[in-house]
Amino acid sequence: MNKVTVCRKEHFNAAHRLFNPEWTDEQNEQMFGKCSLPNYHGHNYDLIVKVSGYPNPQTGYVYDMKKLKDIIREEVTSRFDHKNLNLDTEEFRKVNPTAENIAVVIWNLLRPRLEEELDLKVVLFETERNFVEYPS
Amino acid sequence: MNKVTVCRKEHFNAAHRLFNPEWTDEQNEQMFGKCSLPNYHGHNYDLIVKVSGYPNPQTGYVYDMKKLKDIIREEVTSRFDHKNLNLDTEEFRKVNPTAENIAVVIWNLLRPRLEEELDLKVVLFETERNFVEYPS
Amino acid sequence: MNKVTVCRKEHFNAAHRLFNPEWTDEQNEQMFGKCSLPNYHGHNYDLIVKVSGYPNPQTGYVYDMKKLKDIIREEVTSRFDHKNLNLDTEEFRKVNPTAENIAVVIWNLLRPRLEEELDLKVVLFETERNFVEYPS
Amino acid sequence: MNKVTVCRKEHFNAAHRLFNPEWTDEQNEQMFGKCSLPNYHGHNYDLIVKVSGYPNPQTGYVYDMKKLKDIIREEVTSRFDHKNLNLDTEEFRKVNPTAENIAVVIWNLLRPRLEEELDLKVVLFETERNFVEYPS
Amino acid sequence: MNKVTVCRKEHFNAAHRLFNPEWTDEQNEQMFGKCSLPNYHGHNYDLIVKVSGYPNPQTGYVYDMKKLKDIIREEVTSRFDHKNLNLDTEEFRKVNPTAENIAVVIWNLLRPRLEEELDLKVVLFETERNFVEYPS
Amino acid sequence: MNKVTVCRKEHFNAAHRLFNPEWTDEQNEQMFGKCSLPNYHGHNYDLIVKVSGYPNPQTGYVYDMKKLKDIIREEVTSRFDHKNLNLDTEEFRKVNPTAENIAVVIWNLLRPRLEEELDLKVVLFETERNFVEYPS
Repeated sequence: MNKVTVCRKEHFNAAHRLFNPEWTDEQNEQMFGKCSLPNYHGHNYDLIVKVSGYPNPQTGYVYDMKKLKDIIREEVTSRFDHKNLNLDTEEFRKVNPTAENIAVVIWNLLRPRLEEELDLKVVLFETERNFVEYPS
Repeated sequence: MNKVTVCRKEHFNAAHRLFNPEWTDEQNEQMFGKCSLPNYHGHNYDLIVKVSGYPNPQTGYVYDMKKLKDIIREEVTSRFDHKNLNLDTEEFRKVNPTAENIAVVIWNLLRPRLEEELDLKVVLFETERNFVEYPS
Repeated sequence: MNKVTVCRKEHFNAAHRLFNPEWTDEQNEQMFGKCSLPNYHGHNYDLIVKVSGYPNPQTGYVYDMKKLKDIIREEVTSRFDHKNLNLDTEEFRKVNPTAENIAVVIWNLLRPRLEEELDLKVVLFETERNFVEYPS
Repeated sequence: MNKVTVCRKEHFNAAHRLFNPEWTDEQNEQMFGKCSLPNYHGHNYDLIVKVSGYPNPQTGYVYDMKKLKDIIREEVTSRFDHKNLNLDTEEFRKVNPTAENIAVVIWNLLRPRLEEELDLKVVLFETERNFVEYPS
Repeated sequence: MNKVTVCRKEHFNAAHRLFNPEWTDEQNEQMFGKCSLPNYHGHNYDLIVKVSGYPNPQTGYVYDMKKLKDIIREEVTSRFDHKNLNLDTEEFRKVNPTAENIAVVIWNLLRPRLEEELDLKVVLFETERNFVEYPS
Repeated sequence: MNKVTVCRKEHFNAAHRLFNPEWTDEQNEQMFGKCSLPNYHGHNYDLIVKVSGYPNPQTGYVYDMKKLKDIIREEVTSRFDHKNLNLDTEEFRKVNPTAENIAVVIWNLLRPRLEEELDLKVVLFETERNFVEYPS
């Protein structure tokens, strides 16, 4: 028998702006366009967390979804929901909050909470049309 | 023959916070909760604009969708997309940017651009689970 | 100014079967087909609750969505979620749990919880392809 | 008690082009743009049929969805699915197949199949972003 | 040239409850919560079947979708649609109908119907927010 | 650190028919059914382009989404949108426009536009229920 992947979708709403503090305003505007506007904009982020492993023969569960939901709330949504990612969070004080970087940060927050034999992947939707997967 | 309603869906991403400047911080927090956090959060707003009238017998159109798309861009998305509604826009300097108020503001911006014999309605999604219709 | 409608989407998962206890098995099968099978089947019900009124000038809210969410949980989802509508609920012991009847029951549960000057409408999705609106 | 509306979503895939045969090619191109290109393009049309009435106390149904599904297949999808609306159908030989006109044609095909005391409305999605409602 | 994956989405509605018959009621309730309630609840299951292979140069098909649709109906939806998975099916009399186990059962039912050189994967949505993939 | 995948969703509307010019009409009808009808039908194609690589430490981007959007428009949507794939495009004059073949053609158009160290995958939805992935 192969591994099964279980997936849980959650969401959070946050503000951000994209910019590199080592660049001039012009360089930032040229690279990031209106995503770099100084007063921030925001998104409804949809997050899918995927955990792969072998189902427990007693329960039929790879992972208890109620427990996964709790971990995502503790590590991700309680931290980022209704926040300004640039101003209100430790994680993005020095890291540009692109979708790529947010996905990597979320993966790093969740990874220590799961047993080693389980595989982890995250998918983050910034909009319906722009989304990222980590690891690829 | 009855009127037909034509509908166009657009979207914009913006930051906002909810608060009443005449209230104390505690009053604002009690009423608006985490939506009132001082550094803003944001949404992917989905907007549906509905225009009702009789199809032109020459074209079969109630309204040219390309033209409606242009008007929505000129009046709404160019004004609000990637902006901080509280800080960057005239419309919400003194008006609390709740979904209700945003929908009314958008209706008032679009109404003068359409012929009088056409009816106008807007639907604004703040999230997939929270949305408003104006007029009701 | 006109009324604004605010809408909140929630969901619940339930089992049911359709049948009229005053009919024979054959009559039930002829009318309700596989929806009448004796051991029940189930659905992910999506519920949209729509409340219309004038925004409060102090808050910009027609109705506080957090409060609406609480009322829906108290009256609807805590009552029906993960239940067998025919066996576990008072409401459908003698009422056939068609989508039409479920929508009317939900409307009757919510109506007394809202101020009289507010209008109420519910939309209930039994599947993505079958849904009902009450009142029409 | 008020009327309840029951809704059924179906779909069909068809080709079309927009043009007025009494106009020159230039006039058509100016009005309809790329929708007027001579070799046709196409859409996945999503159709929602809404029927309003009082639930039958014996069945709890306003209308049997299986029967509604059959009528939509007989009158609409068997007629238009995988067809070229301009070339293959009687209905659009002389009528420009705009979303507005398709919705009105569908309403006229379905109306005689339903009892007089039932109300009928159709919603037709040409794309996820362009759709029409008839009657308004 | 690489393999191409063709995907077909189908759905079925079923009732189930989660429990391990070798456990006490308390143990079941502790593990499965309201998913273990004795009178069952249900879901609209969405199923995506993915088949990978090389397109046939004569047809441009990896697999005829009409044939895949028929196989899914014969093996999956005719077996599970509008059924109580615990009571009405051989497959889940002794197997707990978690999403993980349902996905594995469906894969095992479909695998013998496809040529050996084709790869098979299934994705099963229990709700919009909970879904599983097999193999991972 | 692993690679990250960035994904962009676009769409185009086109007409097509399926047939093999070396076959008789009967052979084509037997294989392709109503998809082979001579006057074409059409679809709203949704396209997801997935690009995998390491985020640039200066920008936090794997790939600039505005640039990816431009490349998709230049290579794919400007070529196929509102076109008849069989009649209006070089690519499908001798290639049957199945979803499989369209996905491979799109991949071949985009591949030379991206740096070699980036991985490319495309997902093409012909309808909500039928879609393909390339490479598998």
